Amino acid sequence: MSEVQLTTLCYLERGDEYLMLHRISKKNDINKDKWIGVGGHFEDLESPEECIRREVLEETGYDIPLCDFEYRGMITFISDKGDYELMSLFTAPCPLEEPKPCDEGEFSFVKKEDVYDLNLWEGDKIFFRLLQERKDFFSLKMAYDKEDNLREAILDGKDILK
Amino acid sequence: MSEVQLTTLCYLERGDEYLMLHRISKKNDINKDKWIGVGGHFEDLESPEECIRREVLEETGYDIPLCDFEYRGMITFISDKGDYELMSLFTAPCPLEEPKPCDEGEFSFVKKEDVYDLNLWEGDKIFFRLLQERKDFFSLKMAYDKEDNLREAILDGKDILK
Repeated sequence: MSEVQLTTLCYLERGDEYLMLHRISKKNDINKDKWIGVGGHFEDLESPEECIRREVLEETGYDIPLCDFEYRGMITFISDKGDYELMSLFTAPCPLEEPKPCDEGEFSFVKKEDVYDLNLWEGDKIFFRLLQERKDFFSLKMAYDKEDNLREAILDGKDILK
Repeated sequence: MSEVQLTTLCYLERGDEYLMLHRISKKNDINKDKWIGVGGHFEDLESPEECIRREVLEETGYDIPLCDFEYRGMITFISDKGDYELMSLFTAPCPLEEPKPCDEGEFSFVKKEDVYDLNLWEGDKIFFRLLQERKDFFSLKMAYDKEDNLREAILDGKDILK
């Protein structure tokens, strides 16, 4: 059995922009050179909100109240390289001050309509659209092949790639 | 670090009733004599929907389409006995035929308003009320002490016991 990775990911929103992290700093980073949000792995006894609150505080310096995180979806991410991850997806309002420097990459605010032009995981474009189009919770399973091509995407139990 | 248990739980709905499982069969069952829904642990590479669909099929014989499961909430369950569980909570329409006999207990259909009279975990009453009152997704963290008393309940980041 593949060991499941339990993670959270948050897109902090300021007006019509997201705070995006360009992952250019870490070596051997599965996300190397990609643009992603803020997040990381669960620590002991954390709820999803507690995990994302801690990760945001550690990576950006933003001390955001637990109840400001909006739980938007669950992403089941698998790859033929052996990855298996359950990722809880959040959005939250971004404080006005600038984030502190992050040792995992560089932060930029990016217009929501422009995120699709960034170097993103193929499937991330799917959930950016869902975040824009829906307010209700969604569950999305995405499977990647060994070349990182998206080979399956199941949204709320329905295949959306076929 | 406590090992996290990843599980799913579903309440199958027929009209104004839930299909409830009275856990009287298994020895050394943490749920012994309690009434709960149907569910269990994730298997390799499953999404939450795939896990609950398989568990419902195994325990009841009901072959319910993946897209019929409605993802209603996330429960973070911890206890001072050392338990740490992340439970994805679903509802789904119950087929008309009777469920097959289950080796974990006995099934009954129970009116939704009467479930509170059953031998339930204290916190389960909280999420039964949430299932009745809300259509949107919720995240609920519940902590039990060593005597199985609920000592903390955090709903969407807000303490609801204080």
